[in-house]
Amino acid sequence: MENLEKAKDRGIIDSFETDPASACKGSDLVLFSTPVGSFLDLAETSSRSFKKGAIVTDAGSVKGRLVYEMEKIMPAGVNFIGGHPISGSDRSGIGSARAGLFKNSKCIITPTEGSDPSALRTISDLWTALGSSVITMEPEKHDRIYAAVSHLPHLAAFSLINTISEIDPSFLSFSGKGLIDMTRIASSSPELWRDICMLNKENLIEMISVFRKNLDTLSGLLMKSDPHSLEMEFKKARKLRQTIGQN
Amino acid sequence: MENLEKAKDRGIIDSFETDPASACKGSDLVLFSTPVGSFLDLAETSSRSFKKGAIVTDAGSVKGRLVYEMEKIMPAGVNFIGGHPISGSDRSGIGSARAGLFKNSKCIITPTEGSDPSALRTISDLWTALGSSVITMEPEKHDRIYAAVSHLPHLAAFSLINTISEIDPSFLSFSGKGLIDMTRIASSSPELWRDICMLNKENLIEMISVFRKNLDTLSGLLMKSDPHSLEMEFKKARKLRQTIGQN
Repeated sequence: MENLEKAKDRGIIDSFETDPASACKGSDLVLFSTPVGSFLDLAETSSRSFKKGAIVTDAGSVKGRLVYEMEKIMPAGVNFIGGHPISGSDRSGIGSARAGLFKNSKCIITPTEGSDPSALRTISDLWTALGSSVITMEPEKHDRIYAAVSHLPHLAAFSLINTISEIDPSFLSFSGKGLIDMTRIASSSPELWRDICMLNKENLIEMISVFRKNLDTLSGLLMKSDPHSLEMEFKKARKLRQTIGQN
Repeated sequence: MENLEKAKDRGIIDSFETDPASACKGSDLVLFSTPVGSFLDLAETSSRSFKKGAIVTDAGSVKGRLVYEMEKIMPAGVNFIGGHPISGSDRSGIGSARAGLFKNSKCIITPTEGSDPSALRTISDLWTALGSSVITMEPEKHDRIYAAVSHLPHLAAFSLINTISEIDPSFLSFSGKGLIDMTRIASSSPELWRDICMLNKENLIEMISVFRKNLDTLSGLLMKSDPHSLEMEFKKARKLRQTIGQN
């Protein structure tokens, strides 16, 4: 509520509603950006007030089944198109708002066979206008990719901090820049990430086990004192890492 | 060699030697900053040219046994004091040199019972003059702390990249800022990290197993669909993370 009032005071939003049905009444475009676990309930509650011809979309980090379930809830003449702007950070709240947040970033749109082509075009144009490059893919593929490149890394960051604390909480005060950068995402909203992980749990469980296997490989090389193979593992990682972004 | 010539051209160093014994000849202070695995050989090779009264120190990320072994190699009248400035990055080479690298950072000094108090003071003053805050501790304690807050995170970053690549290398191109920040340290020098990990392997093997156990906890909560406990794990991590540094 405080967040919403601040946003209004600063002229970022024109008005707000705290009742979902009232918020959606008469809207041409509705964008869900609450934690993903609340989407279905919110959609059920507000669907009766969706205007005929309205487009409903979202900014959630999980697509998969959720997209089909959202589609099912839409009344006749209302189209749902799933979206996921890849511009998140560990911050939340209006104090972290900034113009240009979506500039030069990717936005994944996940149409299905049932998606209305014109609604799809509108959502795609919306993100393009905000400066994102739009990529469309199936909801299932989205969830597999982002389990690997986003959800697993978040779990690893949360887990790493809890591991250090289990070993000795006083050690954390000796952290250098490496750990600080690496665990920035462990400051992310627990509620948000609880929902994301639960909704993408099949992919995540599988990927945690691949991660564990890779950690076991390194641990095994240390146990049998094989510096050469260890270096090869690090070299492989470094080469791959250098393809994904500037330092 | 190219690095050394560039450094000389830019006036960062006055002169260089590529033969360790010649480099150390007549020096008041010798600082080792090659990969830690090469310290003992280099010290053996150059010890005959250490000047009486010289102080030998290092900037390596592992201390432990290495400190005692270095002490043993020192000729009479030459003092070794182990040091570890906590100012590393994934970069290497003279192109990454910058004034003020050590400002406002920690430097760990690891004296032993045999350390000469005057040599210890000199090394401590050196890092203080560069802007670091000096902390002294036993070599063994240093290795335990940095296995947890630095060496394990590096292994996790290398491993995470290899995991994603094993799942599907094409997924890496969908990385967002979270993964890029988290895996920056996977761009670190493989040779350097091979040596660090090998020399601190007992601590690391133990800590990888604690990390695995923590990952298993999260995986188990996903398997039994326990969003509440998952959120509690994330909350615990977030609270701890917020104690170690600004975003």
